[in-house]
Amino acid sequence: MELRGAGVGRGVAVGPIVRMPDPLPEPQQAKHDGDADREFRAVTDALDAVAAELARRGAVAGGNAQRVLEAAAMMAQDPMLIDDVRARVVGGTTGERAVFEAFAAFEETLTAMGGRMAERVTDLADVSQRIRAQLRGVPAPGVPASDEPFLLVARDLAPADTALLDLDKVLGLVTSEGGPTSHTAILARHHAIVAIVGVTGALDLTPGTVVIADAAAGTVLVDPEEALIDDARSRIAERAEAATAPITDGALADGTKVPLLANLASPDDAPAAVQLGAEGVGLFRTEFLFLDANTAPSIERQRDSYTRLLQAFPGRRVVVRVLDAGADKPLSFLTDAHEQNPALGLRGLRALRVSEHVLRDQLIALKHAQDASEADLWVMAPMVADAEEAEYFVRLGKELGLNTVGVMAEVPSLAVVADQVLEVADFVSIGTNDLAQYTLAADRLLGSVAGYQDPWHPAVLRLVKLLGDAGAAVGKGVGVCGEAAADPALAVVLVGLGVTTLSMTPAALADVRAALAAVTLEQARSKAAAACGARTAADARQAAELAG
Amino acid sequence: MELRGAGVGRGVAVGPIVRMPDPLPEPQQAKHDGDADREFRAVTDALDAVAAELARRGAVAGGNAQRVLEAAAMMAQDPMLIDDVRARVVGGTTGERAVFEAFAAFEETLTAMGGRMAERVTDLADVSQRIRAQLRGVPAPGVPASDEPFLLVARDLAPADTALLDLDKVLGLVTSEGGPTSHTAILARHHAIVAIVGVTGALDLTPGTVVIADAAAGTVLVDPEEALIDDARSRIAERAEAATAPITDGALADGTKVPLLANLASPDDAPAAVQLGAEGVGLFRTEFLFLDANTAPSIERQRDSYTRLLQAFPGRRVVVRVLDAGADKPLSFLTDAHEQNPALGLRGLRALRVSEHVLRDQLIALKHAQDASEADLWVMAPMVADAEEAEYFVRLGKELGLNTVGVMAEVPSLAVVADQVLEVADFVSIGTNDLAQYTLAADRLLGSVAGYQDPWHPAVLRLVKLLGDAGAAVGKGVGVCGEAAADPALAVVLVGLGVTTLSMTPAALADVRAALAAVTLEQARSKAAAACGARTAADARQAAELAG
Repeated sequence: MELRGAGVGRGVAVGPIVRMPDPLPEPQQAKHDGDADREFRAVTDALDAVAAELARRGAVAGGNAQRVLEAAAMMAQDPMLIDDVRARVVGGTTGERAVFEAFAAFEETLTAMGGRMAERVTDLADVSQRIRAQLRGVPAPGVPASDEPFLLVARDLAPADTALLDLDKVLGLVTSEGGPTSHTAILARHHAIVAIVGVTGALDLTPGTVVIADAAAGTVLVDPEEALIDDARSRIAERAEAATAPITDGALADGTKVPLLANLASPDDAPAAVQLGAEGVGLFRTEFLFLDANTAPSIERQRDSYTRLLQAFPGRRVVVRVLDAGADKPLSFLTDAHEQNPALGLRGLRALRVSEHVLRDQLIALKHAQDASEADLWVMAPMVADAEEAEYFVRLGKELGLNTVGVMAEVPSLAVVADQVLEVADFVSIGTNDLAQYTLAADRLLGSVAGYQDPWHPAVLRLVKLLGDAGAAVGKGVGVCGEAAADPALAVVLVGLGVTTLSMTPAALADVRAALAAVTLEQARSKAAAACGARTAADARQAAELAG
Repeated sequence: MELRGAGVGRGVAVGPIVRMPDPLPEPQQAKHDGDADREFRAVTDALDAVAAELARRGAVAGGNAQRVLEAAAMMAQDPMLIDDVRARVVGGTTGERAVFEAFAAFEETLTAMGGRMAERVTDLADVSQRIRAQLRGVPAPGVPASDEPFLLVARDLAPADTALLDLDKVLGLVTSEGGPTSHTAILARHHAIVAIVGVTGALDLTPGTVVIADAAAGTVLVDPEEALIDDARSRIAERAEAATAPITDGALADGTKVPLLANLASPDDAPAAVQLGAEGVGLFRTEFLFLDANTAPSIERQRDSYTRLLQAFPGRRVVVRVLDAGADKPLSFLTDAHEQNPALGLRGLRALRVSEHVLRDQLIALKHAQDASEADLWVMAPMVADAEEAEYFVRLGKELGLNTVGVMAEVPSLAVVADQVLEVADFVSIGTNDLAQYTLAADRLLGSVAGYQDPWHPAVLRLVKLLGDAGAAVGKGVGVCGEAAADPALAVVLVGLGVTTLSMTPAALADVRAALAAVTLEQARSKAAAACGARTAADARQAAELAG
């Protein structure tokens, strides 16, 4: 039997599957039978059991995992939480519902506090699930322990699910939901794990069944014959060998240069990116500097961090994105955590413009770093809507001494007025995930509309073309730094649409480099035209494959 | 002194201002000093006082307002709510915070229940505010009573604020926030009330000050001389006279026909629309049929309602939109109330496609109504993303016997692939509010990004042009049924972009009719081109005014 989905990358994996249990549903708002003492005692028993289990698992795991697990065990015995649960149970609420509500209230408090506290929310949700599972007498959610390497089958993976996942044991990921830009796909790309997402029927597989997951083909072969397994194993060995081939600069078959850059979230990741052949950095996210505190970090602290990054890339381009707060990345001192639709809220440049001192400090720190290194620093702003906003940002950056200042293309309007934007900005970098989310009006993190979140959609490709054409008209660069650039076949199409650089998670560089080297610019353009003329993302993918 | 903002319509109003208090902020999560009994007693005193005040106001008002106010009074004494507040106060939470949380939890429950219960949420929020105001000893929110007609000054108006507003007393609305598509602006258009929104400095006006609000000029003249007041009063009289001028069909100065249609939300509104010269219906919303129940209404009930509507427009076009649930209009049996970004969620056609039986029943009911009347029924789907979805809907509609089937253009992708969509759809109708919201990635209901929600934005105008061009290429109609059509100057630009019909709240028909009659198609096109070349919404408005 063969199941089909969207493959991430081009890898192959063989092994038995392990099934991740679904999260527990929200318990009904129900009243207990009146014996509050008994109801509350059941809760405290569950709290104790979960705390003990987490501590035990921590002791076995050791190291960083132990710290994470012990912190989780402590949460399960937090006195304020227990008090809140008691008050709710005394008020008549069932134990399970009281646990759900008390944890939800605590999560809200932590989220509102922002910074490190907010990061603990995902752990808290996991602990709440465990306690409720204990109360119901069902297996705890999360990945079952396994001594052997396995392919993990799940509905979809949330960040909380993977925090405690031992990735060394994971041969591949197979999910029934999620698209090519889901958390699962991003995780897979980042760690170069084979993944097939959106696989109908995946949840019906029996645990322990051996499968072959083939990302390039987008297939999951169930219970394959021995010969097919042998074939898969030799392809895995070949890929491992190819990965050690000499690294060249990104270029098409006809010699057209397409610089291949890395997406980084911390200066610590720079050496690994250089080793994988990154010709520079196409997206350096600066959020990590802002997560610790309830105020922005000092200019000096930012300067040191940016300088450390830039010094890893002498003579190379490094594109730094200023703080992108808001939406799924709220920051208490900049954004409002109570927006009805945070993805459509005061985020990115909009939030920075309201708190301009934060933006100015960051730009000043970047100017210092620019002066203190040999790298070619480019700075860009997220969530820019039009030429007026682009001009505001570019003018401020230049005024503060930065050499090259541009904008992200994520908001559809920016692509529609690309001609005006490229008059004022030095460059544009396309964030395909958000661009697809807004163009299709489909939340990139919501499972029920995940099918829309596909950068292959012809509407997204046409907007990329508007940007590419506008860049070519004035001789300015148009890069892509979204997940799309890491899809080898799509990378070719993007170049055909006029994209001049591609930036991606370093693990994807080798596959993209190989795909570009196989086509001429003319072929890439004809693939791009075919994809733009298609009516669906799937048709666009196929049309590109057949064209050129 | 003159303040400036965006005017809604072209009316003028003169009178003293009344200031609406701002809503109370969310109380901090704080603990009381330990005397739970005293804390809880203060809450029950406040509950009693608010219930008594609401009942008193109801008795004075009488009629429907009395029913609304008495229902609110009962909410303030709901025993489950009081129990919940007590449990929270016993748990250590302050009285005000406990009231806030208990009401919030109750609101969530009601929202999840959907239907009529969900509609009570806004009333509940009002009661919660009143109780907290009482606890704090500050004036209750809401419109202060006034015996004389007045101009209402507020930060922005939410539906809850206006539910109890006596519109006969309101000469005009002046808000410091909100844009031309805010709830305030929609309310003003619907009731033909003069409104100036986004007026910086409005909140600093002293209550009782006399102002002249001039919507066409977008100005609020503070404390004007007697001569200016006389002049304003004579302009008000002239407008009242012009409104009784004979009604003609919508057309440009050169005779180009531009049918002017009405947006309706209930068949009961049809006679008033006909009287104001509506040449048909450009948007009939069907949500009202679905709000009462936890399941969809029967085919028969729907058929009767649609037939009643169609029979009011013999020989005329009536465009009916199938159910648009989701986002700010959740329906328990169709949509998920827990989406992180409901505006980007499973809404409109997406939700109907998942529950296709609801869609089929509605289309069957529409087919019956089509057969039972002489009206020219057009049916369209909301939230359509591309040609594949358009084809799904058109095919289903035709299969069930409907004559004319089209789609709304609200999702940016639909405009970007307009050429493909107009191959399969019989017509397109542009929902400018949602189209602007998604194109600019700015929540149309969020104050902090209200500035983006402007259909004059050149990116929105360019997408309208893509749709207009695609319609002209195949000779199919492209209408506008969003708020933009009710702005007389914008209506001219839309026609210049290729829009063939305009649908609006009936109160706006006269102003739009007059504006269209004053320009030729050539002038409209040159205004449209000028607006598309501008860099901001404000520049586009000005460029259109100067051009042509």
